[in-house]
Amino acid sequence: MAIITFLSDFGSRSPYPAAMKAVASGISKATLLDISHDVRRHDIREGAYLLFAVAPSFPAGTVHVAVVDPGVGTARAGLMVKAGGQFFVGPDNGLLLPAAHRLGSITVYRIQNPAYLRPNVSPTFHGRDVFAPVGAHLARGVPPEEIGERVEAYVDLDFGRGCWEEGGLTGRVIYIDPFGNLVTNIPGEMVQGVWEYGDVIAVEAGGRSIEAPFAPSYGFVPPGQFLVAIGSDGFLEVAINQGDAAGKLGVAIDEGIRFGGIPLARETL
Amino acid sequence: MAIITFLSDFGSRSPYPAAMKAVASGISKATLLDISHDVRRHDIREGAYLLFAVAPSFPAGTVHVAVVDPGVGTARAGLMVKAGGQFFVGPDNGLLLPAAHRLGSITVYRIQNPAYLRPNVSPTFHGRDVFAPVGAHLARGVPPEEIGERVEAYVDLDFGRGCWEEGGLTGRVIYIDPFGNLVTNIPGEMVQGVWEYGDVIAVEAGGRSIEAPFAPSYGFVPPGQFLVAIGSDGFLEVAINQGDAAGKLGVAIDEGIRFGGIPLARETL
Amino acid sequence: MAIITFLSDFGSRSPYPAAMKAVASGISKATLLDISHDVRRHDIREGAYLLFAVAPSFPAGTVHVAVVDPGVGTARAGLMVKAGGQFFVGPDNGLLLPAAHRLGSITVYRIQNPAYLRPNVSPTFHGRDVFAPVGAHLARGVPPEEIGERVEAYVDLDFGRGCWEEGGLTGRVIYIDPFGNLVTNIPGEMVQGVWEYGDVIAVEAGGRSIEAPFAPSYGFVPPGQFLVAIGSDGFLEVAINQGDAAGKLGVAIDEGIRFGGIPLARETL
Repeated sequence: MAIITFLSDFGSRSPYPAAMKAVASGISKATLLDISHDVRRHDIREGAYLLFAVAPSFPAGTVHVAVVDPGVGTARAGLMVKAGGQFFVGPDNGLLLPAAHRLGSITVYRIQNPAYLRPNVSPTFHGRDVFAPVGAHLARGVPPEEIGERVEAYVDLDFGRGCWEEGGLTGRVIYIDPFGNLVTNIPGEMVQGVWEYGDVIAVEAGGRSIEAPFAPSYGFVPPGQFLVAIGSDGFLEVAINQGDAAGKLGVAIDEGIRFGGIPLARETL
Repeated sequence: MAIITFLSDFGSRSPYPAAMKAVASGISKATLLDISHDVRRHDIREGAYLLFAVAPSFPAGTVHVAVVDPGVGTARAGLMVKAGGQFFVGPDNGLLLPAAHRLGSITVYRIQNPAYLRPNVSPTFHGRDVFAPVGAHLARGVPPEEIGERVEAYVDLDFGRGCWEEGGLTGRVIYIDPFGNLVTNIPGEMVQGVWEYGDVIAVEAGGRSIEAPFAPSYGFVPPGQFLVAIGSDGFLEVAINQGDAAGKLGVAIDEGIRFGGIPLARETL
Repeated sequence: MAIITFLSDFGSRSPYPAAMKAVASGISKATLLDISHDVRRHDIREGAYLLFAVAPSFPAGTVHVAVVDPGVGTARAGLMVKAGGQFFVGPDNGLLLPAAHRLGSITVYRIQNPAYLRPNVSPTFHGRDVFAPVGAHLARGVPPEEIGERVEAYVDLDFGRGCWEEGGLTGRVIYIDPFGNLVTNIPGEMVQGVWEYGDVIAVEAGGRSIEAPFAPSYGFVPPGQFLVAIGSDGFLEVAINQGDAAGKLGVAIDEGIRFGGIPLARETL
């Protein structure tokens, strides 16, 4: 039994998420799951991060229909991307790529065959008329080669990867979660064997400098205090226990962040 | 395998949507899908529009349980409405009618048989104790005649239909989506053969007059610019590419809107 | 066919709810239902109330995965609680207990067997790596004794129960719903045979005193007027018809509330 997920910036008070699920439910018996419909409007990077964060937890065979699509109805193509036994369906604007790359090598198809779309495609709502039906047909086993053709050119998107630079770790903020935790693009394994829990780390972000202990999780520091952790995605994260780190630092998505490589002190957590 | 949808103004942080789905899941094996639980509180017209927008995308056999119900527990009746092979279940306050009319001719039943309700119906929560169980029984094939009796008198609701008037198109705003796009009650086919893409149209709404090109979709004008489009529902829509048209015009649901019939100029999109 | 529900304070715009459902869907064929992911951050009492409110409506066999977990990754245990044929899975901080107690006598197990967790448990996301997989294994019939061992010591939580005191009913506010209705911990049966619909009741809450009629439901008083009702959970509730009682009284969750035992007058509703 396949799973089809849905992600969009349509807003959970709009009719658009349900319209996509309605169409899919008429084509496929797959289980329909929402990732989120509250992505910030037109924020392709935020949508891409959500897909990237959840895709590794889904079983093979899952089809993800993702629509953050400011170019809907223009000449931008619609894509199917196959990676790690899962499919990603949505606009050709980079949204699908970080998640697909994360699962392994990718194959990209451009959606073309009108037999697998709804009749009379609305130029303002490809989520309902193109991506939902294509996703549902993939979920019931139609091969992507029936629906479109392989392409080598598409809009790629890469969150990059933080690195050691002049004795520190330099990267970017790729997501701020609803708690205000800053997720970076610096893989946690980069500090293995370098930092130990309790080490006090210098952090520069949003034009501010703070010091915070490296801890396994939030509750190891008192409420209101900063910490550095390896988040659930495996990346370095800056958080305040029961507080809003992004708000306090004044940092936004895609801004730079730097961690000192040499601990300043050692605390008992 | 039937589908039961749920729509309400209960709020997604309340326990009430889950309570309805809990009851339905104990009666029927149908797939349960949320339309939205974030309808503005007691806004029957907004709820009615959401149902109206999504109903045509659902397969026959779908049962919609919809609860925007300021009169819960008073003498207002509970209804089952059959139209186009789908059922609509909810309070007798107009909520169900625009969607049902859109699917074709309708048959209306008043809910009466207590055997299909939960025991000890709470006068403050008919969503859980009346509408969810009735919807679930319909989804497993109980005929509506078992649950209630046909009625001819009920609260009707009609979004009306814009029309040509003194050389222009006059209608009403029936929905403002979370992006701020204004959906009108003027069917797009009314401008077929009259306007062409690129025609600049005069729009009067919210006491303001603007000029905007008629375009297939949002991305055909620069970000921040107004456009007129045929929206995904088939109705004329006023939008700003990546902006908030309703906010900028100061227009609210149910206000009048007028489009000039004769294009003012022609632009290349 | 079992049901697994999910409740959290992760926020519906975060990737975390979908990650939990992804993991569960790879283990079990159960139907996955959201209760809410918009519990106020770290508000264990609000989360506990939502579970408490919906649990009695679910069929036997349902497994509830609930995560409001400020102590994630610290020494706090993970629990499975069995009650009334349902299971509750989540952190040992009281979250699960009011709902479980409501269903009858309870058996509590501490999660221990790593074979039923995801490999490499993230210390910041037990929802995905501990509670979701444990819930899914319970849903497919694994006995709790396989996953952990019975414990007698755990963090309990009790909403208490209002009582008659000096001629009035004294209790606490245990929930404020998105409409602003105040749900108390005073069972409605305490006023049976004492108050009749239309009786005007003195209410003291938030440092204010008001008078309001006892009514079956909201629509029995004019819009904007206070009323006292027995809410859908069976507890006394203070509401304003189409208004925000909690906002007007300035009352917060867990504050005291008192109802005069002797009606002040009788109104015709």
